[in-house]
Order: sequence, then structure tokens, then C-alpha cells
Amino acid sequence: MIPHELKGSEAAKAICSSLQETVANLRNKNVIPTLAIVRVGSREDDMAYEQAAIKRFNNNSGRVLQVTLKENCTQEELEKVIMNINRTREVHGVLVMRPLPKHLNESRIKGMLNLRKDVDCMTYLGQAGLFMGEKGVFTPCTPQAVIELIDYFGIDVSGKKVTIVGRSQVVGKPLAIMLMNKNATVTVCHTKTADLRAECKNADIIVACAGKARMIDDTYVSKDQIIIDVGINMADGVLCGDVDYDKVAPIVSAITPVPGGVGALTTSVLFKHTVLSADRS
Amino acid sequence: MIPHELKGSEAAKAICSSLQETVANLRNKNVIPTLAIVRVGSREDDMAYEQAAIKRFNNNSGRVLQVTLKENCTQEELEKVIMNINRTREVHGVLVMRPLPKHLNESRIKGMLNLRKDVDCMTYLGQAGLFMGEKGVFTPCTPQAVIELIDYFGIDVSGKKVTIVGRSQVVGKPLAIMLMNKNATVTVCHTKTADLRAECKNADIIVACAGKARMIDDTYVSKDQIIIDVGINMADGVLCGDVDYDKVAPIVSAITPVPGGVGALTTSVLFKHTVLSADRS
Repeated sequence: MIPHELKGSEAAKAICSSLQETVANLRNKNVIPTLAIVRVGSREDDMAYEQAAIKRFNNNSGRVLQVTLKENCTQEELEKVIMNINRTREVHGVLVMRPLPKHLNESRIKGMLNLRKDVDCMTYLGQAGLFMGEKGVFTPCTPQAVIELIDYFGIDVSGKKVTIVGRSQVVGKPLAIMLMNKNATVTVCHTKTADLRAECKNADIIVACAGKARMIDDTYVSKDQIIIDVGINMADGVLCGDVDYDKVAPIVSAITPVPGGVGALTTSVLFKHTVLSADRS
Repeated sequence: MIPHELKGSEAAKAICSSLQETVANLRNKNVIPTLAIVRVGSREDDMAYEQAAIKRFNNNSGRVLQVTLKENCTQEELEKVIMNINRTREVHGVLVMRPLPKHLNESRIKGMLNLRKDVDCMTYLGQAGLFMGEKGVFTPCTPQAVIELIDYFGIDVSGKKVTIVGRSQVVGKPLAIMLMNKNATVTVCHTKTADLRAECKNADIIVACAGKARMIDDTYVSKDQIIIDVGINMADGVLCGDVDYDKVAPIVSAITPVPGGVGALTTSVLFKHTVLSADRS
């Protein structure tokens, strides 16, 4: 039985619990799953996410290594950091906060970071592996959080019509591939879609990842649908998703809240990927 | 005005004509656009395609270099060939006939071939570039043939509902990304899709690339649709597409024939990519 409110925190706990045996085995070999977070500058949302990751790792016997560079650092300095992390055996995963400042060449980093440590799928080889269905590649954390949520609540997507609203490289596009691989019939919508309401109303599952506060209201949904809201927006000083929860929740069969939905899962995915990477190495 | 029968040969001629000025400029610099075709063994369809490519290149002042290896060649021999082609300035594009025999490691070749010569998008970096929307990467020839056909006949896909039947790595998946980039609203269907007829009937454009002879018949289509048939199948000794042309053609607004549709365009795309690569180098 799928609950009406799909709480990310529940799924997050389950993911972390399921990894405790692996973490204990690693500890017996003196290995602590370690994530390096590379941050250039001190953007507020980067720092908030970093703190959330540190908390998640610390609470689950993992470790975060903070590597912080000044906003005006050089490409050479950044590349030295990446090369150093690539070489360091004790680091199993890397998260590079993006976008990087404009004077830095992000492409070179995407080509340079070790694929085995690319726990958020930022590299070219990671993205190619995701797109081509290669085994052993880590998927990006946010779309993977959607998959984990679906799996945790036993939502069967095989053969189901899934409408994704948003075609970004960080969520919409990779999620389309990942849901196709789970045998969903996926439609990707965007600002140019002629009749977005119809595409949404006809779906079994809607995934909102357009980055537009409360754009999916009661006129977009129908009974028996499952709504997954990936949006995190500030509107009138309040944190809200891409779905107008108050209007939509009474109509549909199940829905993720914001906050406390998909967003509550991403650091667990980061932890999971780092543990798997540590276990492989 | 879009004609009822969308002939690939017409579009193919137009592509090759549009390149003649570039080809002439290259010839003045003693550069002849050259494609190396690497074939292991002598599979019949590989050889037929090779001959078609040779004809296309010869007729348009290009050149094909045939590199043929025995069916039982070693990985080392194949890799030597690839490394040699990577180094050879006079070769601008490479087509490796696939699938390779099972004893050979295709992944290593996907990692090894020079991205700049990857005119059919077989490499990991090429696939990553396609998926991530990087500029200057060559798309795979068959889905690109669909795009060229759409462009040649002035079919506007922006905001239109496109249903793709088939999710293969060579056609369905890359085409989904490419059509999304042209602002189409894309739905990808496959064997697990619950109601394929409805997904097809509701589309503005259907692209059939499932590899199943005449599976799309008159019960899948509606008036005013455009049907693009990528299938090439043998059924009862006759070459046919994934669409039952005789039943579908009278109903829809436009349709590609098989043979003479998308298939007639692929060697022109191969030529185009090779010319562009020569022009860049």
C-alpha cells in the first residue's frame, strides 16, 4: 500500500540502514567511506548542502573531507586538487560543487576526475555510461533520489506513463533514461510543449523538475496519479516545490512534500555511492 | 508544402550538393575528405553498407579507405589499426562496423578512437557529448538521417508530439535527445509500453525504429500524421520497414518509404560528417 504522503526521510533512513553491514565490514579493514567535497567560493546553497552531507556522513560512520578554494582560484590550483584526490586512496567519492565560477574551465574537470570516484556523475565518462547503460557507473544523485524513492515505496513504473516536466541535464534528461531503463513509457515536456496540461493529466506518474515554483496546480493533475516533486524554490520567503501541494494533494493518490521529499534523499544517495565505491576499491 | 512520400534520395542529393563548395575548397588545399571503414570479418550487410558508402564518397569527390581484418583477428591487431588511424592526418572520419565479433573488446575501442574522427558517434566521449549537448560532436548517422530528412522537408517539430517506437542505443535513445533539442515533446515507447496504439494515435509524428517488420499498421495511425520509418527488415523475402506502408500510407499526411526513405540518407550523413571533420582539421 503506497502512502499518500511520500516522505523522503523514511526512504533516506532505509538506504543508510541497509548500508550499515557494508560500512562495518569496511571499518574492520580500516576503511572509512570518504567523500571529498570540492567547493570554490562560498555560495550559500553550496554551503548548506555541504553541511547536510557532513551530517549524513558523520551520522552513518562515513567521513567528509572539505576542500575549499577561493572564489578567484586559478584553473591550475583546481586541477591540482582534482589530480591529488584522484591519487588519494583514502578518498572514495568526489562532489564538485557546480556551477564553477565562470573563469574556470569546467569541461577539463569533467574530463579529468577519476570515473571510479565520480559519485555524482559529473564526468563525460560517467554521463556516457549513464546514457549507454554501462554497468558500474554512478548515476547523478538527484535523479537517483527519485529512483530510490520510487523503489522504497514499491511504486512499479514498468509500462506506466511517466511525464517528466523539465529537460535539464541534472534532472530531466538523466531521469528520462533511468526511467526508460525501468521500462516506463517516458514523455519529456518543457517550455515548448504545446499542451502541458494534457501531457500531465494523461500520465500515471508526474515528475516535476522545471524549477518553477508551484507551476503544477490542480488543473494539471487527475485522480489516482502519483506526483513526484523535485523542485526546490523560494516563493514569498517560503520553500516550495514545482507543485502546488495544497491544491494538488487532495486530488492525487500520492505526492512528495517539499521540503521532506526527494530533497531529503540526495545526501543518502551520495553516501550510498561513496560506500559502494569504497567497497569496490 | 510537405509531399506525401518523403523520399530520402532527394534529401541525400541536397546534402551532398550543399557540401560541394567546401569539398572544392578542401581540394584546393590538396585535402580529400577520407573515411576509413574498419570491418572485422565479412558479414553480408556490413559489406553492402560499405559498398554504398564507397559509391557515395566516390560520386562526391571523397574517398573511402577500406581496412579489413579477419574474423579471428586479435584485440591487439584491431587496436593497432585504430591507433594508426588516429595518427593518420589524411583520415578524417572512421566507421567501425559493429557489433564486433564477441572475442573482441568493443569498450576499449569506444575509449580509444579519436573523438574528432568519430563521425558515427561510437566513442564514450561522443555519446557523452551527444547526451550533454556539447558542441562540435558528431551525432550517430542513422538518427541524424531522421533529423536531416525532417529539416529537408521543412517539418517543424517544435512543440509537436513525437512518439518514438523503440529505445535502442543506436536509434531510439539518441533520437529522443536530438528531437528534444529541437523542442519536440518526445515519448519513447517500447515492448513494455501498456498502450502503444494510443501513444501512436495521439502523436503528431511517429518514428518507428523497433526493428519489427510492418508492426505499425492502420490501427496505430491517424489522419494528418507524419510517419518516419527507420526499420529495415526482410519479411517473406521482401525488404520492408517497421510500418505497413500499404495500409498506413492512405491514411496519413506524409510517410517515408522503405527502401528509399531514411536508409537512403545515412551514407550522405557519413559523407557530411567526414567533410566537416576534414574542414576542421
